[in-house]
Amino acid sequence: MRVYFDNNATTPLNREVLDEMLPYFCEKCGNAMSIHEFGKETSDAIELARKRVATALDCEPEEVIFTSGGSESNNTVLKGIDPIPDGKGHIISSTIEHPAVIEPCQYLSKHGIDITYIRVDKFGLVSPDDIKRAIRPDTSLISIMFANNEVGTIEPIEDIAKIAKEAGVPFHTDAVQAVGKIPVSVSKMGIDMLSLSAHKFNGPKGVGALIVRKPLKRKITPLIHGGGHEGGKRASTHNVPGIVGLGKAIELATANREEEMSQVKRLRDILHKKIAETVPDIELFGHPEKRLPTTLDIAFHYVEGESIQLQLSLRGVAVSTGSACASGKLEPSHVLIEMGYPHEIAQGAVRFSLGRGNTEEEVNYVASVLPEIIENLRRMSVLTPKNYFKD
Amino acid sequence: MRVYFDNNATTPLNREVLDEMLPYFCEKCGNAMSIHEFGKETSDAIELARKRVATALDCEPEEVIFTSGGSESNNTVLKGIDPIPDGKGHIISSTIEHPAVIEPCQYLSKHGIDITYIRVDKFGLVSPDDIKRAIRPDTSLISIMFANNEVGTIEPIEDIAKIAKEAGVPFHTDAVQAVGKIPVSVSKMGIDMLSLSAHKFNGPKGVGALIVRKPLKRKITPLIHGGGHEGGKRASTHNVPGIVGLGKAIELATANREEEMSQVKRLRDILHKKIAETVPDIELFGHPEKRLPTTLDIAFHYVEGESIQLQLSLRGVAVSTGSACASGKLEPSHVLIEMGYPHEIAQGAVRFSLGRGNTEEEVNYVASVLPEIIENLRRMSVLTPKNYFKD
Repeated sequence: MRVYFDNNATTPLNREVLDEMLPYFCEKCGNAMSIHEFGKETSDAIELARKRVATALDCEPEEVIFTSGGSESNNTVLKGIDPIPDGKGHIISSTIEHPAVIEPCQYLSKHGIDITYIRVDKFGLVSPDDIKRAIRPDTSLISIMFANNEVGTIEPIEDIAKIAKEAGVPFHTDAVQAVGKIPVSVSKMGIDMLSLSAHKFNGPKGVGALIVRKPLKRKITPLIHGGGHEGGKRASTHNVPGIVGLGKAIELATANREEEMSQVKRLRDILHKKIAETVPDIELFGHPEKRLPTTLDIAFHYVEGESIQLQLSLRGVAVSTGSACASGKLEPSHVLIEMGYPHEIAQGAVRFSLGRGNTEEEVNYVASVLPEIIENLRRMSVLTPKNYFKD
Repeated sequence: MRVYFDNNATTPLNREVLDEMLPYFCEKCGNAMSIHEFGKETSDAIELARKRVATALDCEPEEVIFTSGGSESNNTVLKGIDPIPDGKGHIISSTIEHPAVIEPCQYLSKHGIDITYIRVDKFGLVSPDDIKRAIRPDTSLISIMFANNEVGTIEPIEDIAKIAKEAGVPFHTDAVQAVGKIPVSVSKMGIDMLSLSAHKFNGPKGVGALIVRKPLKRKITPLIHGGGHEGGKRASTHNVPGIVGLGKAIELATANREEEMSQVKRLRDILHKKIAETVPDIELFGHPEKRLPTTLDIAFHYVEGESIQLQLSLRGVAVSTGSACASGKLEPSHVLIEMGYPHEIAQGAVRFSLGRGNTEEEVNYVASVLPEIIENLRRMSVLTPKNYFKD
């Protein structure tokens, strides 16, 4: 059996989305900036996708800038809102952001921009009050993720947006894990800028968007300079099939979100219950309720997450120990460490992330193979307490 | 009849390439950074693509950095080789580069980096001697395009690379229009860095590569910071189907280059001959021989290129007046102006760019509709000399 429980890393493309993309590869092949018919049919397709994104996120089509993905969107905001040559400015972010926010912050920090990383509680929650206290007269940006990729904790985005607005500081959220899974309204939530990535909600890889509300748009310096694409905010020949796929995927994910996500949550909770019933000494990471319906991040005490991942992989099951982007690093997740877990607990983390298309049969299979895997690993582990096994 | 003669703007995806991409949308969907089986099958596919790019361009696989396209590759080099915070450095480029080079240069120029734009002759050729004379002790980069997108002129890349090497200055070439059309060998030509884009040689849109020779790799600051993808040089979840498509497209384009491009050149020259025989007062832009086999950029005196483009578009034929990226601007091409043409000649430019799959039937059709279009436009134009038409 082949089971994919790594949907926070990436998701399979929805076939309905692929069908909508297909004509734009070989037949409708024009450059969307060309003013002939071949160009018009692709620019029309792009504008439809733009409208779909705007409708899904409750913003204006002209506030949607298509990019190559979440990382590019995040880099565009962080480096573009306060161009580094001035060497001034102060950015507020959090300690549990994705590397695509933390790494640009560290780069900016080396070049004279001050960064305050807000700490989180044991559930991974950022406190809006902490953000309020961190704001300075020179604060140029607040960037807090919508939901955490590893533990799934959903941050109090509306409260943070309100504080940012009161202080007159632009507010950006990396919503890569939230869009298509939980309600996201740019307008109602008071978000100024938002990053998203199509492949996280069954859209294609290599395409994303950055939402920038109209009043802020002129303040953004492009990351990629060149032709006048995307209102002068992102040069490069449009990835037409990708953008078409993003538009269709966000439309489908939004239309079916409540139904699909309640099914995903149901399966996740069955998996959690079954694991809790059959495997002793486990611990849930992240907030018990304020959490993505897809995500179940669990510590298996006395063993290493990577060993569990490998054993599951040998049985056809894909899970991860943290973010895919940090795979290969032997250090435990920075997110769990920042949530206050000691190294020995954090290193036992396994993230099961479910998605559209997963079945109860798959849940049952994974739950059935886990107890033996864990017991075997615990028998070999030097971390397992003496006399842990009675036999 | 629907005729696509705008292949320098973008090309239709090769069906064989699409076939190779298809399994990576819905089935082989893993994140290439994941260490389970779903990840392994996509990372294997990416490494195969990397080898194919390296083989085609005569470099090492680890010198290939996958990006979202030519614009991103160019921006990465220009902004990354000499990070702007120092506010120092000197870049040598040319006056006829693509906006994806000129615009980043102008951005850098605003922030303290000195740019020397080498002027070109009437054919659009850069003189290596001019470059030699422009080199200063603080020159940090020479960036000259391999072949011009509008007129097709092929620059003396080997000579420029040699001068750069002698001076110890890194040499980058925007080879977006050259790869797959004319011989490009990074190693034999002494190129240090090279940008390419898949959609220019019948690969997918939204994916490209930046070649950086090993000794220079550590000197490149990423444009997109985040996870450790692409050896830490370009963060973002890999666009697996796109990268697979780029690999297959460059393999096919290289394997069939001589045969396909001699056919393209033959058709282009037939079109040129027919136009010259039936339409008076035309002029060829670009070098008569040192020119891309795809490109025929012609001035139709006394009329505007945009009017010709529109009339051809009404008859199902796609051509352009210059680069697609500059479409919509009413100014004449900066390339033609820099080549010394007066505005009234430059504004009469129409670029016919042929590609794989075009036919002699299409050439005949375009040649058959052109004379009437031009005559009608000339009859209406205030620029046409009095008594030009005898009737």
